[in-house]
Amino acid sequence: MISESIKKIIKYALAEDIGTGDITTQATINPRKKGRAIAVAKEDFVVAGVAVFAETFKCLDKNTKVNILIDDGRRAKKGDVIARVSGNLSNILQAERVALNLFQRMCGIASHTSRYVKAVRGTEVKILDTRKTVPGLRILDKMAVRIGGGRNHRIGLYDGILIKDNHIEAAGSITDAVKAQRKNPFMKIEVETKNIKEVKEALKCDVDVIMLDNMSIPTMKKAVDLVNGRTLLEASGNVSLENVADIAAIGVDYISVGELTHSVRCADISLKINA
Amino acid sequence: MISESIKKIIKYALAEDIGTGDITTQATINPRKKGRAIAVAKEDFVVAGVAVFAETFKCLDKNTKVNILIDDGRRAKKGDVIARVSGNLSNILQAERVALNLFQRMCGIASHTSRYVKAVRGTEVKILDTRKTVPGLRILDKMAVRIGGGRNHRIGLYDGILIKDNHIEAAGSITDAVKAQRKNPFMKIEVETKNIKEVKEALKCDVDVIMLDNMSIPTMKKAVDLVNGRTLLEASGNVSLENVADIAAIGVDYISVGELTHSVRCADISLKINA
Amino acid sequence: MISESIKKIIKYALAEDIGTGDITTQATINPRKKGRAIAVAKEDFVVAGVAVFAETFKCLDKNTKVNILIDDGRRAKKGDVIARVSGNLSNILQAERVALNLFQRMCGIASHTSRYVKAVRGTEVKILDTRKTVPGLRILDKMAVRIGGGRNHRIGLYDGILIKDNHIEAAGSITDAVKAQRKNPFMKIEVETKNIKEVKEALKCDVDVIMLDNMSIPTMKKAVDLVNGRTLLEASGNVSLENVADIAAIGVDYISVGELTHSVRCADISLKINA
Amino acid sequence: MISESIKKIIKYALAEDIGTGDITTQATINPRKKGRAIAVAKEDFVVAGVAVFAETFKCLDKNTKVNILIDDGRRAKKGDVIARVSGNLSNILQAERVALNLFQRMCGIASHTSRYVKAVRGTEVKILDTRKTVPGLRILDKMAVRIGGGRNHRIGLYDGILIKDNHIEAAGSITDAVKAQRKNPFMKIEVETKNIKEVKEALKCDVDVIMLDNMSIPTMKKAVDLVNGRTLLEASGNVSLENVADIAAIGVDYISVGELTHSVRCADISLKINA
Amino acid sequence: MISESIKKIIKYALAEDIGTGDITTQATINPRKKGRAIAVAKEDFVVAGVAVFAETFKCLDKNTKVNILIDDGRRAKKGDVIARVSGNLSNILQAERVALNLFQRMCGIASHTSRYVKAVRGTEVKILDTRKTVPGLRILDKMAVRIGGGRNHRIGLYDGILIKDNHIEAAGSITDAVKAQRKNPFMKIEVETKNIKEVKEALKCDVDVIMLDNMSIPTMKKAVDLVNGRTLLEASGNVSLENVADIAAIGVDYISVGELTHSVRCADISLKINA
Amino acid sequence: MISESIKKIIKYALAEDIGTGDITTQATINPRKKGRAIAVAKEDFVVAGVAVFAETFKCLDKNTKVNILIDDGRRAKKGDVIARVSGNLSNILQAERVALNLFQRMCGIASHTSRYVKAVRGTEVKILDTRKTVPGLRILDKMAVRIGGGRNHRIGLYDGILIKDNHIEAAGSITDAVKAQRKNPFMKIEVETKNIKEVKEALKCDVDVIMLDNMSIPTMKKAVDLVNGRTLLEASGNVSLENVADIAAIGVDYISVGELTHSVRCADISLKINA
Repeated sequence: MISESIKKIIKYALAEDIGTGDITTQATINPRKKGRAIAVAKEDFVVAGVAVFAETFKCLDKNTKVNILIDDGRRAKKGDVIARVSGNLSNILQAERVALNLFQRMCGIASHTSRYVKAVRGTEVKILDTRKTVPGLRILDKMAVRIGGGRNHRIGLYDGILIKDNHIEAAGSITDAVKAQRKNPFMKIEVETKNIKEVKEALKCDVDVIMLDNMSIPTMKKAVDLVNGRTLLEASGNVSLENVADIAAIGVDYISVGELTHSVRCADISLKINA
Repeated sequence: MISESIKKIIKYALAEDIGTGDITTQATINPRKKGRAIAVAKEDFVVAGVAVFAETFKCLDKNTKVNILIDDGRRAKKGDVIARVSGNLSNILQAERVALNLFQRMCGIASHTSRYVKAVRGTEVKILDTRKTVPGLRILDKMAVRIGGGRNHRIGLYDGILIKDNHIEAAGSITDAVKAQRKNPFMKIEVETKNIKEVKEALKCDVDVIMLDNMSIPTMKKAVDLVNGRTLLEASGNVSLENVADIAAIGVDYISVGELTHSVRCADISLKINA
Repeated sequence: MISESIKKIIKYALAEDIGTGDITTQATINPRKKGRAIAVAKEDFVVAGVAVFAETFKCLDKNTKVNILIDDGRRAKKGDVIARVSGNLSNILQAERVALNLFQRMCGIASHTSRYVKAVRGTEVKILDTRKTVPGLRILDKMAVRIGGGRNHRIGLYDGILIKDNHIEAAGSITDAVKAQRKNPFMKIEVETKNIKEVKEALKCDVDVIMLDNMSIPTMKKAVDLVNGRTLLEASGNVSLENVADIAAIGVDYISVGELTHSVRCADISLKINA
Repeated sequence: MISESIKKIIKYALAEDIGTGDITTQATINPRKKGRAIAVAKEDFVVAGVAVFAETFKCLDKNTKVNILIDDGRRAKKGDVIARVSGNLSNILQAERVALNLFQRMCGIASHTSRYVKAVRGTEVKILDTRKTVPGLRILDKMAVRIGGGRNHRIGLYDGILIKDNHIEAAGSITDAVKAQRKNPFMKIEVETKNIKEVKEALKCDVDVIMLDNMSIPTMKKAVDLVNGRTLLEASGNVSLENVADIAAIGVDYISVGELTHSVRCADISLKINA
Repeated sequence: MISESIKKIIKYALAEDIGTGDITTQATINPRKKGRAIAVAKEDFVVAGVAVFAETFKCLDKNTKVNILIDDGRRAKKGDVIARVSGNLSNILQAERVALNLFQRMCGIASHTSRYVKAVRGTEVKILDTRKTVPGLRILDKMAVRIGGGRNHRIGLYDGILIKDNHIEAAGSITDAVKAQRKNPFMKIEVETKNIKEVKEALKCDVDVIMLDNMSIPTMKKAVDLVNGRTLLEASGNVSLENVADIAAIGVDYISVGELTHSVRCADISLKINA
Repeated sequence: MISESIKKIIKYALAEDIGTGDITTQATINPRKKGRAIAVAKEDFVVAGVAVFAETFKCLDKNTKVNILIDDGRRAKKGDVIARVSGNLSNILQAERVALNLFQRMCGIASHTSRYVKAVRGTEVKILDTRKTVPGLRILDKMAVRIGGGRNHRIGLYDGILIKDNHIEAAGSITDAVKAQRKNPFMKIEVETKNIKEVKEALKCDVDVIMLDNMSIPTMKKAVDLVNGRTLLEASGNVSLENVADIAAIGVDYISVGELTHSVRCADISLKINA
């Protein structure tokens, strides 16, 4: 089911595109005319966001029918029909661009995530996203990461504790910063560390997760040996498809990848109308 | 000046990230503590969106000072300081991610646009964007294209007439579709064509712009010769940095590039706090 | 179909009128009681806005049935039943005033527009509206003008270029102002002129439409002769039902009439309940 | 002071007109250029809404200065300067139309109200408005009536009890309908009557106001004699400037006039920029 | 029927609780699983707000069925089943807390009101609420008072005139303050008085209701004797279940009780799922 | 600093109370008149929400000055002046009720929380709130708990994992339910248990917190002995000021108390104007 928050995003996007009306369609298309459309994959990718795709059409016109042929998480191959849409033609034409803009982005994110997940296959490592999402679409970006096989780091500043260098500096030390957080009884605590000395201090504070931020692979290796399973470790910074397997091999628990959502290549999907 | 619409986008993005509060910062940072930050380029790119970057901090706390050192449209080199921020530290930390997410995207779009503009330098061709923007951020995406030296195609379905294949089919012919649009006295009319036969018909209808959609370079060349300056021509579909100069050389007036906004690589910018 | 924007207008208007509740109805009418109503024309007019009228009742209570007997654009004669409403009586009573306020205004606008259209019958002239609409209701005002046989000038400042004296003065000359606008590739350009000298300059700039603003009929005649079909002409200012035929006779293409929407006499419609 | 509700109306109206931007002004006017403007009366009228006029400019740009020369309730004569505006020129141009649309309507309402008030001068009769206002602008319409010397009837369905024929019919009789309302201890009760028999029954129920709806002057005279000051009387229906003095002479306490707000002729005001 | 205003309250409350998603339920419950629940009284109380309770579930998922067994205004005994809910289990779990928070508060208010109503049984006294409600929930709080047998004082500052000491002081005297209000023809006027001298002045001004504010019982007795039925009297301030019968015995018409809504003990209701 | 979310609550509450205008004040108070007010404690309590109190006045009129004399978390004694307000008198009068309604509730919650905190003094036990808050005011309710010395349990369903009986039943067992949650890497996991058998299972699953729900004191004692510090324990259900010390003595880590926010007695505060 589509939540109210996602409906709001879709409605906003439709209003942004349609504004005071699709003047081309109004002039040429009989407002009662029916139509059909198919969403076709023009390359191979992981499908994500079929419910968002469908809801965009229904949001504009609740009588539109959308039939999903390939579900979230499955792979579409070039030429595959992912969904069939039928209903009022004017409304299908007006929702088309928004539906694709949202859907192509989600498929793009899921596909890219799945490449990272595949690259670390065989290890216990989980691929994480970050807060480097497109403003306004975070819940969709994070949903696409999950569909692609990744896990979500905290959604925002409100649902996870991540002590960064500025917090540490302001508090005086990692130890003091962690102590300050202990007032929040039900949140795990993660601390960002830049070097082995900081990893040692964080370990002493008994935090739940230690982030190894922008460390070289040898330094991260040292950290893994030092911690030796006593707490969870997250590698972060300068991760790419080229080096992710090497990082995973070190033995960290999580690898977070900003690129999953901040630099998205949309999947190539085409809506063929009356095809 | 920042319009109310852009302020709304920023407020929404801040609410999305901060939610019920930045629990880490609340626990570690004295709410009265002051701080400073600099935005540093970590690669070369075209700066775009400095007012959006600044407004994000001011939106959270109107007393924050933001000093812009490199203006929209100018190039930042790796290591350049683009802006200085000073004010309440907690508020700077809470606005940081949203300010960067918006700014990095705009710089990324402007930079990519400028690559296309440069590739067609020496011709009269204008690079255009499309409606393939991220839902909710269209006005920022389109602003970044302009800053990068491109021109905006219509903003949405409401402020431009673009007759596509479905409109043509529903109306019966290009001629009938154009006739239907003539009722709108103050809008230019563009028609999408797939082949030379359609170009000929559009030309006869005296439309303002003819889009050559997904045509091969030889076919486009034929269209340019045929039209011979009697109307404007827009090349569209499968444009890349590799082929854009070749397309420009044909003699079209506009080349539209979906990739400018639909598959954005964010510029690499870092906010160094208390640096 | 009623767009989301129109639904918002209706919901806002209902909230404005009903506020925390219709205290009279709550105290006297059994909340389950059913009722019927008819909308009766109390004078002759052009019907416009039947879907808005119907939606107002449905917006408050989706189970209300509204049966339209006279459609948009047709003439109602005094005594004609335009629509039948049936459903929950309390809800009909609570929606009544808002439904009529919106509907009567639209019928009033369409009727007045149709008088102008009739006055220029036999010429090629199109009657245009302006941006002198009631704040908040522009899309309804402009829809009513279309139903009455008029055409819409630009909807707002965003979907049409109209270079006025202040733009000309700021740019230095008509020529410079037009040159500045050429950056927007897909919009037609209209220039406001006050005298023949300005018409000449605008003509040289090859603009799409020239507005003859507040000119005398002889001056407009001179302009028509001068332009001689090379561009479109819009007469504007001090137009009335008395002089519109004379202006049309000159040979301009458009006549814009602020009065259509800024000084509306509502059509007289009565809702008879349980009649 | 301008309330939050009025600010919302103004913001909405600005957004409606400006949309994604004033493309003409953006292309021709230097965004830093300053300008001045004066609002000039082009006919005689009662000024109403100066604060709304001023707020429209400030709402778009809080640095705009607006200097009011003729206050609400005073008469402007043709040629009078009502207000001076100075600030950023682009913002003045963008707010111009909305400021005038709101201001001209309020002045039109106040002026028309003052004609009715003048027509009943010398009697104790108060002129009342109705709920026949333009959806969305009721608080401004009602404010303009007060400025013009009229009084406000109830604002909406929530702040006054008016028992109409449908309530009477549903309750069984005037007596029963009034009894049902007595549960609301702090509201006055008005009953709509169509004939002398109903006036008699309402009088017996000890209601606070009796509306004489659509009665002839002789019938109203009979009602006044019958009631003889024991309760307040409101004449309603078919009131015009022609007959309002005659109705007032009968001795009713209030005369309500739908025309004040439902069929408004805007006052003629011009904004001269850089004059 | 549930008004749009109440739906807005419910939607806001659901968004407040669910935020970006019920992470526990999402991980454990099959999103297609069906479930049933019963709302059980865990003490004796007056039921109020069944429609709000039902709408909360339907608001999240319009396919949820809610069957009400004990209607508003009736007494539930410990152990009674008040309502049955069935539908999608995840949605029932997510709406549970909000539905209870709203319903328990309304039942608590109605129950407490009914205690006051019972305490004055046998007299003509009506129990009134005040504006001391929880911000955002006033319409629900006031509805619960009515269900509990009380009457509503004015809803807000806009639908009733209550002249308090500050108004009197600013106007100069009770007489002047009342005279100023007479401009509003359709509202009753209430004046707050602190002593017999003020009661006398208010009486002379012929106001509709006199509030005896924070007076001792002997002073109120004196006021009742003095007024002798010529106007209505409301006792206010320091009313409790202990003294309300004594105050009623004096012969006032209304007793207003802030405690009804400002210090609410929620009724104890439990939602048993799959019971 | 007051967040945007809190400002929204305040604005909504002001709109709810003021609606279309404070008709009493408008008629009696000169809109330019200045005034002063003091907030006086009429009983002893813990102050909470001074910034909310101040913002309510400023929200209506940003020129109002509010001077806080007793800060959040400190005790006010009967007769103490907590704050001084000065500015436009009409605006002070219109904001008064909303400011007090919000402030009195927060002080009431903080005071009641402090009683519980005091009752467990000398132990390590932390007092927790629940999600039984008033819909719409949760962030204020939870802020007041913190000011009173309590800690916040999760804010909503989105920022904490609490596995309840329905989740357990749906998953099959505590073990399966916990396993399902492990996919969320950064959240602590709490499990609700009803008896010692369930405590044992939860302990085996290595959860972060075990809730002892509605258990008798001897049963809880058994659980404490069994767990023996290996995980955190939260006592929940039927907690009162009478038994909280006994529960604390058992050795649990947290005691959650629904009553803190669901059944609030407002603190008694009076705003004396021009005193």
